[in-house]
This record gives sequence, structure tokens and C-alpha cells, in this order.
Amino acid sequence: MSESKKFQQLRTLYGEIADLCHTEALLSWDQQTYMPPKASGSRAQQIATLSGIIHEKLTTPEMGELIGELESTPRLSVVQKAFLREMRFNYDRKVLLPGKLVKELARETAQSFGIWEKAKNQKSFKAYRPSLEKVVNLTRQVAECYGYKNSPWDALATDYERGLTAEKVENLLGPLRDSTISLIDRIKGSTKVNIKFLDQKWDLNKQREFGVRVASDLGYDFAAGRQDVSAHPFTTSIGQGDVRITTRYSETNLVEALLATVHEAGHGMYDQGINPDYARTPLHDGTSLGIHESQSRLWEVRIGHSKPFWEHYLPHLRQYFPGQLDEINIEHFYRGINQVRPGFIRIEADEVTYNLHIIIRFELEMKILNGDLEIQYLPEAWNALYKKYLGLDVPNDAVGCMQDVHWACGSFGYFPTYSMGNIYNAMLLETMENEISDMWQQVSKGYFVNILAWLQDKIYQHGRVYLPEELMKRITGKPISSDSLVQYLNSKYSTIYGL
Amino acid sequence: MSESKKFQQLRTLYGEIADLCHTEALLSWDQQTYMPPKASGSRAQQIATLSGIIHEKLTTPEMGELIGELESTPRLSVVQKAFLREMRFNYDRKVLLPGKLVKELARETAQSFGIWEKAKNQKSFKAYRPSLEKVVNLTRQVAECYGYKNSPWDALATDYERGLTAEKVENLLGPLRDSTISLIDRIKGSTKVNIKFLDQKWDLNKQREFGVRVASDLGYDFAAGRQDVSAHPFTTSIGQGDVRITTRYSETNLVEALLATVHEAGHGMYDQGINPDYARTPLHDGTSLGIHESQSRLWEVRIGHSKPFWEHYLPHLRQYFPGQLDEINIEHFYRGINQVRPGFIRIEADEVTYNLHIIIRFELEMKILNGDLEIQYLPEAWNALYKKYLGLDVPNDAVGCMQDVHWACGSFGYFPTYSMGNIYNAMLLETMENEISDMWQQVSKGYFVNILAWLQDKIYQHGRVYLPEELMKRITGKPISSDSLVQYLNSKYSTIYGL
Repeated sequence: MSESKKFQQLRTLYGEIADLCHTEALLSWDQQTYMPPKASGSRAQQIATLSGIIHEKLTTPEMGELIGELESTPRLSVVQKAFLREMRFNYDRKVLLPGKLVKELARETAQSFGIWEKAKNQKSFKAYRPSLEKVVNLTRQVAECYGYKNSPWDALATDYERGLTAEKVENLLGPLRDSTISLIDRIKGSTKVNIKFLDQKWDLNKQREFGVRVASDLGYDFAAGRQDVSAHPFTTSIGQGDVRITTRYSETNLVEALLATVHEAGHGMYDQGINPDYARTPLHDGTSLGIHESQSRLWEVRIGHSKPFWEHYLPHLRQYFPGQLDEINIEHFYRGINQVRPGFIRIEADEVTYNLHIIIRFELEMKILNGDLEIQYLPEAWNALYKKYLGLDVPNDAVGCMQDVHWACGSFGYFPTYSMGNIYNAMLLETMENEISDMWQQVSKGYFVNILAWLQDKIYQHGRVYLPEELMKRITGKPISSDSLVQYLNSKYSTIYGL
Repeated sequence: MSESKKFQQLRTLYGEIADLCHTEALLSWDQQTYMPPKASGSRAQQIATLSGIIHEKLTTPEMGELIGELESTPRLSVVQKAFLREMRFNYDRKVLLPGKLVKELARETAQSFGIWEKAKNQKSFKAYRPSLEKVVNLTRQVAECYGYKNSPWDALATDYERGLTAEKVENLLGPLRDSTISLIDRIKGSTKVNIKFLDQKWDLNKQREFGVRVASDLGYDFAAGRQDVSAHPFTTSIGQGDVRITTRYSETNLVEALLATVHEAGHGMYDQGINPDYARTPLHDGTSLGIHESQSRLWEVRIGHSKPFWEHYLPHLRQYFPGQLDEINIEHFYRGINQVRPGFIRIEADEVTYNLHIIIRFELEMKILNGDLEIQYLPEAWNALYKKYLGLDVPNDAVGCMQDVHWACGSFGYFPTYSMGNIYNAMLLETMENEISDMWQQVSKGYFVNILAWLQDKIYQHGRVYLPEELMKRITGKPISSDSLVQYLNSKYSTIYGL
């Protein structure tokens, strides 16, 4: 068989897997949006069946042989190399895990989710502990199967952010941690921001209309996607031409739903922008979780929380909510939505304190995976770090070490991708500001097309062709560093708080 | 391996197939309700991939061997026998067709659908003819593969209505045809019904609210289902605890959307009522298309178009549409929604003329499949029958022989299941009226729980355990006949039209 025929065959084999993965994404989207409550048992079974078939198809010997034969082909194109790199990565990851461990982990995390949910409601870490211990134990076994040089954490993290290691994270987050703690200290000593104007009732329909309008303005394509309501906002790709976002609305929170919409639209525009030629291959995906998060945060935080953005949108927002914002000027509004306040809950955190939440989780999961922290002592260790970094006394474990679902799902090595997103987008913004010299003026006119085109050209279209570090180097010319983020945060908040 | 282990294994094998079929149902439901337009290509691909895997899994040699070994088990229960009967039927049907023919038919019907749609818009049978000829040709090959005693029609129809033959249909529909033509003749000579009051604008939201309320009243469980909007109303089962219905609304048609909702709720309650022990087996389905249709039509036409039903609901309807129905009394309303008027379009037909539309299609497809009618002469043959049975001159083929999608999809042998539904429900109603002596009084009070319980007991719970004729014999004690339907139609419309 000729090489081009083999490539064709491998693409066909993977194409079916991609169809099944997108089908699974639809099952999951539906589960979180429209599925009737009595269907939960059937749905779990359907997802399990589909996962099993996907796993089976990913690990057929035919797949492994084709990859192996094609890897030695001379003169591969950049895209072909990337295609084989991803095929190899997925194949090796899957075959390295014994079927028994995969099943045990699936069963345990499925149970653990329910136990976590219940224990969190009861604020009882004791009820959660045995299950978390089992998940940690199995997760460490997974890391051993994958193998690693320095820490089991590295073996797990690379699933989310290819090539990320604990050492790299320490080098990036260490300086960020120290500068953030110092920035928060200075903010504490300054004048408070008055956010009383946000404390009103905001019509849900108007919120929805405004959100859809903004997402459209930014460039999210509603003909290749849609927006629905779910308990937790998310973005999901159900195939070429079908990238859906969700949001949630609260009558008492104007900014949350809107900026959650902008966040998810950021994820959505990325996936919508990937070269359609990569459809049904592993390249038809974002570079990594961190790069993906850089795009959602770029739109949500860097643009959506900026003063030029609201110079354009505040007058419109006043029209959507007549009488509710008439006396709030741009300066007041901007400061109001950028208030910094240390809190217990990661997902409610402002952009300054946010990274400290991540750093705490990273430090703890390193200790857990290295065997330096027994699960029974997790609450104490958690609370000590919240005291140390954020100056807070955690009142109970439900708003403490049980607040996130990640560990219950066995997702260790995941949290730092959130901060990586912030680090990446600070670097990207710096470059973009240089290359589109009047970009903020464009934002202040509600003119986003050049920004979108820049991102499309530099990031979106490439899908997963480049790995994170390579992509960032191509765009910024620099190695990954948290300097840009530190500088941006210090500068923005020094201005807001007059430091 | 013991017999009980073999049964377990066969159930597990089929359970995965059932999960995939339900997943395919979700892909299709989504396609018709919420899917963004740019996803159509990906979605077709995903459905094709899933169909391929389902076909493969249905025809594994392991499946065939297990069925064969279990069939010789002594002392099988009724349910086990039915389970094996369905497994055998599905297996044999699948393995009898050469893969090449399956693919050719799939490709041809997929193309044919688009060609039909376009040709219908252009009112050009000429543009549709070559494609229909190919589909007919392939469908006849399918019938040859399945084999038959008398007519190729029989080989195809049994997919929709197990054991139905052209001979049986002729015996059932012949008397129905003659009595219907005579009834219509008598109606033509009588006083017209005044339906001017229906010609108003009806608020869509109120229509939706009223429809949901009625469906709930009847017993459709919204916690195990939901209602959405689609171009053509349908019901789909996405697994145990998840049976969804759709409808459509028109501002100018009050009755259409409401009674479409009642129709689909009838399908939905049937599927929701199947014994959950049959989940993920071929028994977790309606007995046949005809029995399914008997249930939707029973609620829609027999109950939803009855006077007692509107004695209860008309006052409520007046409240939903204040000022719009105040001067319309129950007699007027009842006669208005039961107007008989021969027309060109099957799906808009009243219950008297409806069966003639079916009879015309049945007579034509018999001729086509037996080789007695060449496709080029189909329009003439169609128009001649509409003249003969309904007294109408068909103005063009779009409202003539191209109005239905069925033949373009290769669904020959399907149409009579609609009339079978009417025949069955007339027989069932007769029995129910005997066994629930004050049933119409209950309906007039909006009290449906005993009717639902009767249907649940006699029909719903059994799923596909009994074949249609056996089920009807168990319930009514009689062989299938159109006598009850003929008698009901004559009696109802003699009263309405004072014949």
C-alpha cells in the first residue's frame, strides 16, 4: 500500500472515532441542557457504551501499525507530522493503561462524583475522604503506567497541556505568586471601590438579548453554533460547523452571565476558526487547555473587562436596562466590575486573586501525588495556604478543599492550565498591541474584526498543529514567562486603585 | 456456557446496539430541533458512522450463533421467546442483504431525498423520475433478497407491520374504500359546516401553554420527556425515561398544533409505558407501526376530536383566547373541527377521507412493485385514482404523486400502517367502551386516568412482546377487521351531517 493510501486509511479510521467523540459530546451537551430528569440512568449507560467503543477503536493493532509505518515516511509536511504526533500520543496513552485500571478508574470516579456532591452539601470531608483516597491511589497508578522523569504530576499534566511539568509550573507561578501577594497587600490599604450600583434586579430576557448581541459583535457565528442555558457554562464542539456555548443567568448578577457568555464565545470562536481541512482529525481541536483558556480569558478579562470595551457598550447597556445605570459613569462602572477582593471560591475570584487559588491547588496536588500529604490532612493544609496567601480563615470544607469537582473526577494536573491561560494571553496581548497599534481605539468603537482576524491567523486556524510552546514562540518570539502577566496586573490595578 | 449466561451475553451484546440506536435517535432529534445550519454535513457523517457500527454489531457471527443456540432451549418464557423472535428477525433481515446493496440503497435514497425536495419545489416530476426509478429498482432487489410468497410488497411491509401482506390489506381496505366513497357522497349532499370561527389569529405562546397542559392532563410525563418545535411533528425514544415529542405552531391554525401535540403525546405515552425491564432489548418498542399509530390516533382523533373532550376543554380554551371563542358553542365547535372535505394532501385530510389517500398509495405501490406500472406513468395513474375515489382533478404533481417523502426514502409498504392504526383503534375503542362503561362521561370531565390505565395494561406495558394480530386478539377477542372503523365513521358523520 502506498504512503498516501496509508494516510487515507488512517484518516478514515480516525474519522470514525472523531464522529463518535462528537456524538458523545452531543450526549453530554444534551445531558446538561435539555435531557429530562428520568433519563439520567440511560444516558450514563449510553455514554459508557460509546466511550468503550471509542477506546476499542483507538487501540486496534491496525491503528498502531499504520502509525508506526507512516512515522518513517520521508518528507512529511508540517501538518502530516503533527497528525502523526497526535495519533501516536493518543495511541500510546491508551495502550499504556491496562483495561482493568481504565475500568476501575471510570467506576470509581463515577461514584466519587456522587459522593463528593453529597459530602459537599453536608460539609463533611469525612464522608468524602475514603472515595478521594481511592481516586488518588488509582490516579497515581495511572501516572506510574505512563511513566515520568521527575514527578508523577508531570505524567498526568501532559494530557491537558502537552509538555508541561511541575518544574516549569513552579518557575512560572512562583514569581506570579509573590507579586500577586504584594499587589493584594497594597490594594488592601487603598480606597474601596463602590459597587453598590450592581446590587439591583436585572431582567433575565434583557440579559440574554444583550449577551447574544455582544457575542455576535465579537464574531461568534450563531449559524455554526448556538447558546443555551446550563448549570455551569461550557463550550463544546459537536463537529465541523457546530460549536455550542452555554451560559447561566442570575437576576441579581448583571456581569456574571454577560462575561460568562463572552468567555464561552472566546472558546467558541477558537473552535469555529480551526481550518476545516482538519475536520475529523486530532488536529481539529485547540492547541491545549491552556491555549484554549488564553482565548476565553482574552475576550472575557482582557477585552470584556477593559475600559474601552465599556466605553462602547455602557451606553447600549443603559438602553437595555433603562433607569438602572443612568447615573453610573464609565469610570465608576469600570472600577466596579474590576473590584479586587480575596474570597474562598475560585470560580468567583477576580483576575488578581484568581491565580492564587490555582497556586494553592497546584502546591497541594504536588504534595498529594508525591506522597508528602495524606488525604486526611488535606483540609488543614488547604486552610493553612488560604490563610497564608489570601489572609482568609476558611469556615468549612464545602467552601474549602471540597469546592471543586476536578479531584473527584481524577483530574490532577489540570488546575494550572487556568493560570497558563492567563500567562499566555498576557504575552499574546503584548504582541497584539504592537502589531495592531490602535487596537484599543478599535475596541472602544466596538470594532473587533481586526482582533479576530489576528487571532484567526495566529492561533485559531492552526488547531492542534503546533504544541503550546512552539505556538507561543511563533507568535511572540519569546519563551513562556509570567513577566507580561505580572506587569499587566500591576499596571492595571495600580491605576484603578491609585497605588 | 449455561443458557442463562448465554441469554445474559446476548442481552449485553444487544444492549450496546440499543444504546447506539438511541444515540442515533438523539443525533436525529437534534438535527430536527436545535442543530445549527452549518452542521448539516458533519451530522450526516456522524449518523452514517453510527449506522455502520450498528449494522456491523447486528450481524456479528457471535450474535447469530448465540441466537441459534438459545432458540433450542426448552421451556422458554413468553418474554424470552419474544426476545429471541425479535433478535432472529433483525439478524436475518440484516444478513440477507448484501453489504453492497445496503450501501447503494443508502446512497441512492440520501441523494433521492434532495432530488425529490428540489423537484417538488419545481413541480417537475420529470426531474424526480430517474431517481425514483433507481430507488424502486433497488427496493425490488431488496424484496428479492428477503423473499416472499405472493408479492414483493409483502417482503417489504413486514418491516413496518410484522406479517402484514397485500392480500390482508386488500381484504381490510376494500370494504373501507367502498363505504368511505359512499359516505362522502352522502356528506356532499348535506348542509355545510360553518368553520369561519377558526379563521382568526391565535397567539403562539398561548397555543404552546394550552398544548402542554392538555398533554400533561392526558398523562404524558414531562419528567421523562419534553416538547420542542420541529418542521414536522414526531416522537422519538432516546432511551428508558426519555421519550420526546415535537410539534409546530401556526398563528392561523388553532387546532392543528394542539391536536398534533395530542397525537404525538399518544405515541409518547405508549413508549413511556413500556415495561422498563425490557430496556435495551428489541422488546422496548411499540408492537408495530400500525399499533403505534392506533395509539396516537386514538388520543388525537377518537378522544381529541370527540364532543365529550371539548365539553371539558372548550371553556378552558375560551380562557386562553379571551374574546375569540365566546360565541361558539360546543355543537358548533365540534362540527367545525370535524369537517369532512376531500382534498389533495394526505397529511391535511380529515379522518373520513384520510383512508382513501392511503388506499390510492397502496394500490399504486402494488402495481409499481409487481411491475405493472412504469414510473413514467405514475402521475397519470395517481391523478386517475384521485379523480375516481375523491372526485378531484390534481392540478400538479407537487400536490399529487410527489407530495410524500416515503417513496423517495425507499419506504414501500409503509403507507397502509396509517390505516391499520385507524382500523386497530376502532376495534380497541369498541372494547374499551364495553370495559369502561362510563368512559365518555369520564372524558367529558377531563378524567383520563382510567383510559390511560386500560391502555397501559392492555398495550403499553407489553412493548413488542406480542405481534400485532396476537395483541389485538388478546384484547378484543376478534380477528382484525375494518368493520368497527366503518361502523364508527358512518355513525359519527351521519350524526354530524344529519344523514
